Amino acid sequence: MRYNNLDKTAVYGRLLEAAKAYSAFDFREKLDAARVLACSVPIADTLVYNWAAKKLDDGIVALLQTLAGEQELAAKYRALLDGEIMNTGEKRKVLHQLLRGRLGSDVVSDGKNIGEFYGKELERISTFALAVREGKVTGASGKRFRVAVQIGIGGSDLGPRALYIALENWALKEGINPNIKAKFISNVDPDDAAAVLNAVPLDETLFVLVSKSGVTQETRANEIFVKNKLKKAGLDASKHIVAVTSETSPLARNSDYLNSFYIDDFIGGRYSSSSGVGGLILSLAFGPAVFSEFLRGAHEADKAALEPDIRRNAAMLDALIGVWERNFLRFPYTAVLPYSQALSRFPAHLQQLDMESNGKRVNRAGETVSYGTGPVVFGEPGTNGQHSFYQLLHQGTDIVPLQFIGFNDSQLDDDVEMDGSTGMTKLKANLAAQIVAFAKGQDDADPNKQFPGGRPSSLIYGKRLTPKALGALLAHFENKVMFQGFVWNLNSFDQEGVQLGKVLTKKVLSGNPGDDALDAYGKLLGL
Amino acid sequence: MRYNNLDKTAVYGRLLEAAKAYSAFDFREKLDAARVLACSVPIADTLVYNWAAKKLDDGIVALLQTLAGEQELAAKYRALLDGEIMNTGEKRKVLHQLLRGRLGSDVVSDGKNIGEFYGKELERISTFALAVREGKVTGASGKRFRVAVQIGIGGSDLGPRALYIALENWALKEGINPNIKAKFISNVDPDDAAAVLNAVPLDETLFVLVSKSGVTQETRANEIFVKNKLKKAGLDASKHIVAVTSETSPLARNSDYLNSFYIDDFIGGRYSSSSGVGGLILSLAFGPAVFSEFLRGAHEADKAALEPDIRRNAAMLDALIGVWERNFLRFPYTAVLPYSQALSRFPAHLQQLDMESNGKRVNRAGETVSYGTGPVVFGEPGTNGQHSFYQLLHQGTDIVPLQFIGFNDSQLDDDVEMDGSTGMTKLKANLAAQIVAFAKGQDDADPNKQFPGGRPSSLIYGKRLTPKALGALLAHFENKVMFQGFVWNLNSFDQEGVQLGKVLTKKVLSGNPGDDALDAYGKLLGL
Repeated sequence: MRYNNLDKTAVYGRLLEAAKAYSAFDFREKLDAARVLACSVPIADTLVYNWAAKKLDDGIVALLQTLAGEQELAAKYRALLDGEIMNTGEKRKVLHQLLRGRLGSDVVSDGKNIGEFYGKELERISTFALAVREGKVTGASGKRFRVAVQIGIGGSDLGPRALYIALENWALKEGINPNIKAKFISNVDPDDAAAVLNAVPLDETLFVLVSKSGVTQETRANEIFVKNKLKKAGLDASKHIVAVTSETSPLARNSDYLNSFYIDDFIGGRYSSSSGVGGLILSLAFGPAVFSEFLRGAHEADKAALEPDIRRNAAMLDALIGVWERNFLRFPYTAVLPYSQALSRFPAHLQQLDMESNGKRVNRAGETVSYGTGPVVFGEPGTNGQHSFYQLLHQGTDIVPLQFIGFNDSQLDDDVEMDGSTGMTKLKANLAAQIVAFAKGQDDADPNKQFPGGRPSSLIYGKRLTPKALGALLAHFENKVMFQGFVWNLNSFDQEGVQLGKVLTKKVLSGNPGDDALDAYGKLLGL
Repeated sequence: MRYNNLDKTAVYGRLLEAAKAYSAFDFREKLDAARVLACSVPIADTLVYNWAAKKLDDGIVALLQTLAGEQELAAKYRALLDGEIMNTGEKRKVLHQLLRGRLGSDVVSDGKNIGEFYGKELERISTFALAVREGKVTGASGKRFRVAVQIGIGGSDLGPRALYIALENWALKEGINPNIKAKFISNVDPDDAAAVLNAVPLDETLFVLVSKSGVTQETRANEIFVKNKLKKAGLDASKHIVAVTSETSPLARNSDYLNSFYIDDFIGGRYSSSSGVGGLILSLAFGPAVFSEFLRGAHEADKAALEPDIRRNAAMLDALIGVWERNFLRFPYTAVLPYSQALSRFPAHLQQLDMESNGKRVNRAGETVSYGTGPVVFGEPGTNGQHSFYQLLHQGTDIVPLQFIGFNDSQLDDDVEMDGSTGMTKLKANLAAQIVAFAKGQDDADPNKQFPGGRPSSLIYGKRLTPKALGALLAHFENKVMFQGFVWNLNSFDQEGVQLGKVLTKKVLSGNPGDDALDAYGKLLGL
């Protein structure tokens, strides 16, 4: 396998050259019904990626296909699936796709079949979650659990939280019972845990403590906070806390916990939603069958991402268009705009997924790269964003590439008509209108009312946001980020950038900051 | 008054020239305790702005002071306070500071004293909110109101929601009673309203319908949704809905509503949190005295922003440093990072405030400008963000300027010790550590573990997030954005960029999109 920097590929110069013509790309001329219909690529059964309003034509697609070939994207994905060490810095395999089903050869590590291990843990989670849901496992007072509170931060929080919010109303509509509500504690700010605990019935609450290492500062602090409250309430904490961790962590096989479920070093935090990290809380809330459907959807998308023809591989095409925008059209950010209130926290998860994976200035061999890598990612649901930051997106001095997401049907199917259309129809009309407004703009004699257009967007659409569609959506973005990492020649699976802050925090807490500015900042904050 | 473009000022070229030296700015050499102590500027009694970790020295501060003089920032602010038409496109005064107290001359419009009008409405809100809180105004069934649901979008949602979340736990700790919970409906996605209404006791819920024009599509649709539910529950809607609107809107003096409270055209949506738009819901939830404290804090910050010496005017200095970063150091984004879970939605409000105000390519005279204006703004609370997108902030290929916010004390004062320190101490240690880590970085033989540093940040700090501190915080950012608009010679108070989407949406809903691509997108979405 070749591991070349992007700017060492043969096609790089041709893309740079081609980009010069693209500031003049005119959507008013190009974007018609035929193009919209021609530019759809399935992500999975449940979702489609459409790139009609992206700033590129067949010639660029052909160059991007060449780039995909030069950087061996499909082969690298296969190698990853087969268990090659793709997290080079930490010398680890990268196996989150295996949580969703096998696509490569058997992966064995230290004599252990990893796929079987993941399957077994999924089974254990399923059995445990069912027992809780059926009231066979109860709290210390014998009462059924009605609330599950996840304690975790970063990948142990953002993904699971976004997915829970995405399915909460769907489950209500589907009549899924019993209704175990999920809540989340993440921040080391004690107000976070205190507020959540003020709002739950402790004797009916099961805590899901999630930390792969078992030593995450925030999660440990919040665990102690919770144990303290349980003790004060006269409840045996070991009957109210389960752990999701690695087999080598202090949380493993520890009688402090009602049960423990395991992941391993081959599942990165931000890629762990498909493991017990997301699986336990979702299975507790909605039942294991729903989580299985989610995994099935993700697996479908993983499978579709094997295709080497980028016109038939949505994740790879999305990744390459992102590179086209980042390195050749030179847009340093991207906005994720779901037209679905259920996806309100999905952009926050993608922010971690993307920025923590590819926000790097060093390639997988440890050399500084001389091109832009991961963009800044942000977003809020539509139509809310329209009344907020869309002003800049439409009429700002710089272009922000956009990624829209929308569905045909609502989740709750509870709607009213106004002025001849339902809320859902209005939502979709707004979405369609925005894509075209951004692309085509509008002339006006008053420059303040003129819309320059030329602002590119893609659209991911599906029938309804179901567990299966949600799985496909998550996997699509995971795979997109992975392919971009391959193009940029990065290790997308470590996060050394989080270390220095931890080291300095410890110094401050030790009372010996070793830097007088650090000491002075501490004093401003009352330390 | 002179209204010049930034690049027409005499100091512009000198700033461009000076910026060339600043890529080499070395925090390891410059950032020490003395600098940290020297760089604090009060925002108000309750808050301080510190810019020690920003990339500039006295020479640049002097040039920025010259820029402030050339662009007449202080004089323009005074003119705005005195009622000059600063929203030039819409030919309106800009008077949100007047909601917090008078700082200029009496403002009279069409024979009406605007300050008196605002004062009277604040009084009416106070009286009404007290009556609700005392159970003197009840719902149709005679039950006391226990929930207040705001129906609004954009400025009628983001600010009030962020402020409510910011004070919810503070109020709990202060024992403020009765505890009327607030909830919010904004999106036209029917799942938003449906989910909120599934979770509230309708007969004990007061709806606060907020739309200045009274014709906002989303808000009208959600009003009808709510009325439909009230009707089905056999409740008289006119006993459950109050309106906050302009006196000329269809919602004014309308017997469909229990009461109506008024704002006028001089209060822009994103600047309306200090009016009835934020005031009614906050007064219902926490009582009018708390809202008064909030206004008092904001007024203090407004007053401090009058100072022409930028070393003593935090909002003006923050604004100018932002311009230095945007136009001279050329960073196109900025992250807002509150180390306070209570401020979890404050960045979303600032995103609107900043991006909708200054995301513009046309100056106040309607001419295209040839420099960057408002940056992309995003953010999440720390420490959560540390485990998410900070990787890119520390080690990405591009520099993102940062704005930290932190407090000495927690809101709930419910905390535990672990490893010799409380959660609050850990939170503050993390914040101090991050500032220094971003600024100074760290060398390492392994380039993947190297931190380049040189990543600038500011810190806003205070003793505790109280209503008064929150008011000062909000006003600080409003005034910062205003000053930046003056520097860039923009009208920061209109939002023409939201119009085209509305027009095209109407076309789609009329069944006659008039553009075959628009039609095709509608079909993909099942329209």
